[in-house]
Amino acid sequence: MAIADALSRNEDGIATALGILAQRFGERFSTSAAVREQHGHTTTWITNQPPDGVVFVHSTEEVAEVVRVCAEHHVPIIPFGTGSSLEGHLNAPAGGVSIDLSAMNRILAVHPEDLDCVVEPGVTRKKLNEHLRDTGLFFPIDPGADASLGGMASTRASGTNAVRYGTMKDNVLNLTAVMPDGAIVRTAQRAKKTSAGYDLTRLLVGAEGTLGVITELTLRLQGIPEAISAGVCSFPDVESACNTVIATIQSGIPMARIELLDTLQMRACNAYSKLDYPEAPTLFLEFHGTTAGVKEQAELFGEIAEEFGGGNFSWTTHQEDRAKLWQARHDAYWAAISLRPGTKAFATDACVPLSRLADCVRGTMDDIAELGLIAPIVGHVGDGNFHVSALIDMNDPAELEKAQQLSARISARAIGMDGTCTGEHGIGQGKRAYLEQELGPALDVMRAVKRAIDPQNIMNPGKIIRL
Amino acid sequence: MAIADALSRNEDGIATALGILAQRFGERFSTSAAVREQHGHTTTWITNQPPDGVVFVHSTEEVAEVVRVCAEHHVPIIPFGTGSSLEGHLNAPAGGVSIDLSAMNRILAVHPEDLDCVVEPGVTRKKLNEHLRDTGLFFPIDPGADASLGGMASTRASGTNAVRYGTMKDNVLNLTAVMPDGAIVRTAQRAKKTSAGYDLTRLLVGAEGTLGVITELTLRLQGIPEAISAGVCSFPDVESACNTVIATIQSGIPMARIELLDTLQMRACNAYSKLDYPEAPTLFLEFHGTTAGVKEQAELFGEIAEEFGGGNFSWTTHQEDRAKLWQARHDAYWAAISLRPGTKAFATDACVPLSRLADCVRGTMDDIAELGLIAPIVGHVGDGNFHVSALIDMNDPAELEKAQQLSARISARAIGMDGTCTGEHGIGQGKRAYLEQELGPALDVMRAVKRAIDPQNIMNPGKIIRL
Repeated sequence: MAIADALSRNEDGIATALGILAQRFGERFSTSAAVREQHGHTTTWITNQPPDGVVFVHSTEEVAEVVRVCAEHHVPIIPFGTGSSLEGHLNAPAGGVSIDLSAMNRILAVHPEDLDCVVEPGVTRKKLNEHLRDTGLFFPIDPGADASLGGMASTRASGTNAVRYGTMKDNVLNLTAVMPDGAIVRTAQRAKKTSAGYDLTRLLVGAEGTLGVITELTLRLQGIPEAISAGVCSFPDVESACNTVIATIQSGIPMARIELLDTLQMRACNAYSKLDYPEAPTLFLEFHGTTAGVKEQAELFGEIAEEFGGGNFSWTTHQEDRAKLWQARHDAYWAAISLRPGTKAFATDACVPLSRLADCVRGTMDDIAELGLIAPIVGHVGDGNFHVSALIDMNDPAELEKAQQLSARISARAIGMDGTCTGEHGIGQGKRAYLEQELGPALDVMRAVKRAIDPQNIMNPGKIIRL
Repeated sequence: MAIADALSRNEDGIATALGILAQRFGERFSTSAAVREQHGHTTTWITNQPPDGVVFVHSTEEVAEVVRVCAEHHVPIIPFGTGSSLEGHLNAPAGGVSIDLSAMNRILAVHPEDLDCVVEPGVTRKKLNEHLRDTGLFFPIDPGADASLGGMASTRASGTNAVRYGTMKDNVLNLTAVMPDGAIVRTAQRAKKTSAGYDLTRLLVGAEGTLGVITELTLRLQGIPEAISAGVCSFPDVESACNTVIATIQSGIPMARIELLDTLQMRACNAYSKLDYPEAPTLFLEFHGTTAGVKEQAELFGEIAEEFGGGNFSWTTHQEDRAKLWQARHDAYWAAISLRPGTKAFATDACVPLSRLADCVRGTMDDIAELGLIAPIVGHVGDGNFHVSALIDMNDPAELEKAQQLSARISARAIGMDGTCTGEHGIGQGKRAYLEQELGPALDVMRAVKRAIDPQNIMNPGKIIRL
């Protein structure tokens, strides 16, 4: 079957599908401009391309029903969680129907003895952790936003804890998904490991809704450690901080978090969060373990940091102090924006082998200077992943052009270092060209998979790969 | 394009391809009966179905050349590493060419600062660890056999360390593979994490050679821990041992190994390895960490085990004592065989949620008794995975029938407990029916993927799914 061009609108099909869905879902179906725009992409530089209608679903069966209607009439489907993705994932370049999964937010089961839980895709990570509070368990993946777990799976999200606990790839045991023909498929059982056939779980994790709609997830959970300590350590330069990270990881200290903030970001955080940390490249750290264990880990880290010129390293197990520290880290985005009010942050997402991190960050800082941008840097440096927040007046095409140049340079540099243009944000619309640079011939295999599973190209068309 | 029936031989195509390969590869191509049989499957109950020829390749380009010849003439291809798989993965039910990758055994790079390495698929896990010895790093995945890393990736292998370090799914950063059309594809870059498109790495890991031939792997490495301690603890019954495992995992002790041997297996090990452990359900344990850390872990474990009636728990950090202990565990297979010389072990591979493990093992023991089999049990119980070695006289059809009944019952029970028929051995030929029981509708998605990537069905046909 021929692949439909993702960018041509099927007006008749859309009109028919909207009519059917309006009748079927009544007040749970909307074509209002405000709702549609909110369901297009709004948090980045990418132009909003709203869907034609939004349906608010309550169950896997309802998702299957919507998918069958859209499939019959060749209408695009865009799954929606909380709308916090960054690369135009939710745009509807060929129109179509946004399936809003946010009301599918039930926690269906928690199995403390198996360290897993079963959730609907609209549950957010914070809601899950609030629910788990009394069980002694937690779910570790923490992208900046309070994203939905379905969305986090779809972008293969990670965050500050990934250095210890992995990414969504590592923490989803199985998925239930509605496939493009309306079939409901469960990808695996609930066992912790399996060699039973193709890994459809990992195929759907990171597929950005282009292969199916995730309607249920079984997630691994972690025990809340007996003790947690956290600390901050500043360095004379980015290289020293990065070399400390390498030596720390190599030494086998099981870091729970190891985050880099550059001088500009520290200046922003001090101002925004009313702190007085040294304005220098700084690592924010967290250690998980037993009481004796976290003490030992922190001391070992301190010795390593000292070798590389790290100063003022102190650590604490006090909950309040830790919370203050991490609040500052989590507010880094808002702190960055406050450096230049009225702008938006254009976020990059390079991830490179650890040995290349210092070079990659240094080259990026040179680019930022050369382009004359204000662009603080934060990084999940234990994984070799860092973000630049270029503060851009979105109404100034020249600035936007510079930010795009920066993004292109960072992506090319990361790819040249055997790294990736995206460690955790995904490809969406914004990084399709970089994906081609990065993986070349592999894209033919991705296209073959996409065409096989979604021959009509109705599942989130225009994302990840150009067909 | 129509899918060729995997089980019908394409005599003309095979004859033509053999002629071309003989001319091209000379002494590195063999059609001798002995070589062919050795490259069919020999370690299990499944009947040997040898390929028509074996080609011994030296490079990715040579693999691509062989694949192109076979593709042109519609001839099956069976990738071969060391021949240690267990479910008929290497059989050639429709004939064809075995690609022997064992001479592609170079370690191409070790990156200590990135904790990764790049290897050819014929490198075995022991060879890799010998090579790494002086770097302070190791590769943790340890199936029983000294398997090739390409084969281990293909079956999504794991072993005793998986409870701490994960399976092949978690430890492959990227792969280079020759696809069924001869295209050479690299699935990802060397960064530790990525959100760059579909996870082709995880699609090929566990694909059992049915989607392409793996010709290079980038693997994650681990730092050798500062201290390792190991111990043995016996229990009044299997339930107490399993409950100790659950409580231990829940407590957050980062177990490196936690292995169960049942009473019969302990009797076998004592006899075979000349030991005098109590003949009771026993856990073999290993702790990795700092000197203080492993002491703390072992003590915590000891307290938990005591609550559940575990006795005689002692632990040691002495290298020699540890080696003796783990040698006994690794010799469990041979010890089992020695219970009934002249037999072969028919191995099962259930994996269930931890909370169901005791029930599953108990039910299995009842089955074994009912069927009148001699069948010791060992398990990677931290993951809920256990193996029964049913000792069978392969010349006695009645015994073989009983073993198959046992396997069917164990698979059905595991599936009924939301577990899998295979935790680490794979589906091959032997478990295709169980895969259908286990994942039902998901098999249609697997078939679509297989047909899209291998439309001629030339890549290891007859394995995983019936087309």
